[in-house]
Amino acid sequence: MADHQYISVERDGETVRITMNHPERRNALSEPHLRELLEAFEAAGRSDATGIVLGAVGPAFSAGHDFADVASRDLAGVRNLLRLCTRLMQTIHEVPQVVIARVHAIATAAGCQLVASCDLAVAAESARFALPGGKGGWFCHTPAVPVARSIGRKRLMELALTGDPIDAATAAQWGLINYAVPDAELDKHVDELLARATRGSRYAKAVGKQTLYAQLDRPEDEAYAVAVEVMAAMSQTPGAREGMASFLEKRAPVWPD
Amino acid sequence: MADHQYISVERDGETVRITMNHPERRNALSEPHLRELLEAFEAAGRSDATGIVLGAVGPAFSAGHDFADVASRDLAGVRNLLRLCTRLMQTIHEVPQVVIARVHAIATAAGCQLVASCDLAVAAESARFALPGGKGGWFCHTPAVPVARSIGRKRLMELALTGDPIDAATAAQWGLINYAVPDAELDKHVDELLARATRGSRYAKAVGKQTLYAQLDRPEDEAYAVAVEVMAAMSQTPGAREGMASFLEKRAPVWPD
Amino acid sequence: MADHQYISVERDGETVRITMNHPERRNALSEPHLRELLEAFEAAGRSDATGIVLGAVGPAFSAGHDFADVASRDLAGVRNLLRLCTRLMQTIHEVPQVVIARVHAIATAAGCQLVASCDLAVAAESARFALPGGKGGWFCHTPAVPVARSIGRKRLMELALTGDPIDAATAAQWGLINYAVPDAELDKHVDELLARATRGSRYAKAVGKQTLYAQLDRPEDEAYAVAVEVMAAMSQTPGAREGMASFLEKRAPVWPD
Repeated sequence: MADHQYISVERDGETVRITMNHPERRNALSEPHLRELLEAFEAAGRSDATGIVLGAVGPAFSAGHDFADVASRDLAGVRNLLRLCTRLMQTIHEVPQVVIARVHAIATAAGCQLVASCDLAVAAESARFALPGGKGGWFCHTPAVPVARSIGRKRLMELALTGDPIDAATAAQWGLINYAVPDAELDKHVDELLARATRGSRYAKAVGKQTLYAQLDRPEDEAYAVAVEVMAAMSQTPGAREGMASFLEKRAPVWPD
Repeated sequence: MADHQYISVERDGETVRITMNHPERRNALSEPHLRELLEAFEAAGRSDATGIVLGAVGPAFSAGHDFADVASRDLAGVRNLLRLCTRLMQTIHEVPQVVIARVHAIATAAGCQLVASCDLAVAAESARFALPGGKGGWFCHTPAVPVARSIGRKRLMELALTGDPIDAATAAQWGLINYAVPDAELDKHVDELLARATRGSRYAKAVGKQTLYAQLDRPEDEAYAVAVEVMAAMSQTPGAREGMASFLEKRAPVWPD
Repeated sequence: MADHQYISVERDGETVRITMNHPERRNALSEPHLRELLEAFEAAGRSDATGIVLGAVGPAFSAGHDFADVASRDLAGVRNLLRLCTRLMQTIHEVPQVVIARVHAIATAAGCQLVASCDLAVAAESARFALPGGKGGWFCHTPAVPVARSIGRKRLMELALTGDPIDAATAAQWGLINYAVPDAELDKHVDELLARATRGSRYAKAVGKQTLYAQLDRPEDEAYAVAVEVMAAMSQTPGAREGMASFLEKRAPVWPD
């Protein structure tokens, strides 16, 4: 995990910390930056870690796509870049770990999309969020996809059409993030939420997360069809058996996986 | 409506009160408990009542599935149990009456799913809500289905992945319930909301409720296709005619059904 | 734009102001009133305006369908009326301009549907919103379609089943509108939000708005498929090129369209 130019990756106990580390470009998501993130999430996904924290250093969490990388591309080139970006967002949903965004400063455009795509998000009170394509000549079409699925429609329209930032308290109230916390306590709150979200059987948690994304967008009857089959199958696993047995025997569980 | 072991069912004027009454198991939803609830909702659905209140007595509203009933089942056995549970949730949507959850103490797992599945919900301020499968070795796959359709995505992820409870004020803010009210005024607020939600033509209200569930999960153009046809057909009913005539004649309506 | 009986239409700089102006019927949406609105939105949509403000004068923003116009219609007649109304709502989504509702007094039934269908909405603090069909013998089936896509499920059920009004602060908290503002400052806030939402390239903004509606209701992977193709294509437009170039050259953009 050493040869990274745009990010740093650190294994910290049960957690993989992926940190965008290209402050001179405000962590703008050029193609090589996206590739490093994608590979880091894929590698973390194959590991036995239980949680992933996506953070950043520098003056911005991420400024979104790097216009220096976009401006000279033809349509096929931009399409390939956006497909790579979409693959990163979907990989965040697909990895078995709980993924939590640790947001400071400002997350804009595809940077805001990253926050919306993480399972959970905690932001410093001073952080801000924007879909700035609304101000200008392109538009935050793809960032709006996961943002639309996190906040209400009227609020999505305001973010996407105005391009103006909202503060962390507003983002928490709208449901874009879980918590806005004092800047000095950001790491503490990230780690506390991650600890609460990753306890229990690793395998059960992974299937749980992945099934949530599988059912979220479907009509309710289709969602039930998926959830019933997964839940019935999972009841037969050693983890589920131990969970039920320890509950019935009033003892602490010992997770088999 | 007398031979119940797990619940009590009472007709109170226009209202059927279905009360989970198995405090020694914290109203855990064993197969026979689920069957009694399903039959009670089906019977209430065939009655001329206008509203149904789902409440409970004892130290918990409901603790969800009864692990003593699940632990020894094979996959087919658990699947059948979950299908029965899903059928109960869908029946709550399908009955013509307005169904309101009266929540006290704690509603967890399939107990929280019951709250999310009722049309409306009022909880005592001291009540709490959790998807505790997130803590352990199984997972609240099916309870997450209606909860996901009631609250925002980030909040769903927090509830489902952490397993930790939220209080009634948070549940109201997130949209899982309609109101958190002082404990001593729970029945008063339940009855007031039910009275407001059940007035008017019984038949129109039933079609209204069922059409809401029919359109909710669809793309907007499909939702309109359903709603336009139902609304046009319903305009021809005596109830709609009386509603419009009484409005135009500035008199109180006399509902024909 | 002169021959209107129910509305007034005014071009004000970059903005088209469509104002319901039939106070003696509380701006009830009779068929001719709906036709005037539809034609006004279609004409504004073909114009080079960047924004549309939908407001009203009189004791109500709009009272919804005009029962005097509905009561004598047969099923086919009501269906045609509702299809016309639906076409108006869809046209509001389809026009390239940002559409903002300026709401005062009370918006009920199809009047509330108008507010939910506009891209953005600002209301006077004293304004109220209701789906009053829940009180009576018909039901707000079609108004509930866009309202259901703006607010949470439990809140939708309360609005639709009780028929009781909510105030503007509640509407803002639930996400039905963007802002509740002091009555005396309504126009100021409408114009400020519209200015923020319409700046930038007109063409990019129009495609942005229309793509939002195209992706909103789809499963996330289908939404990405749409958004990636649109965003890649739009990257090749002069507006996007100018947006990126001006950003990279640290100068103000000069929009080509």
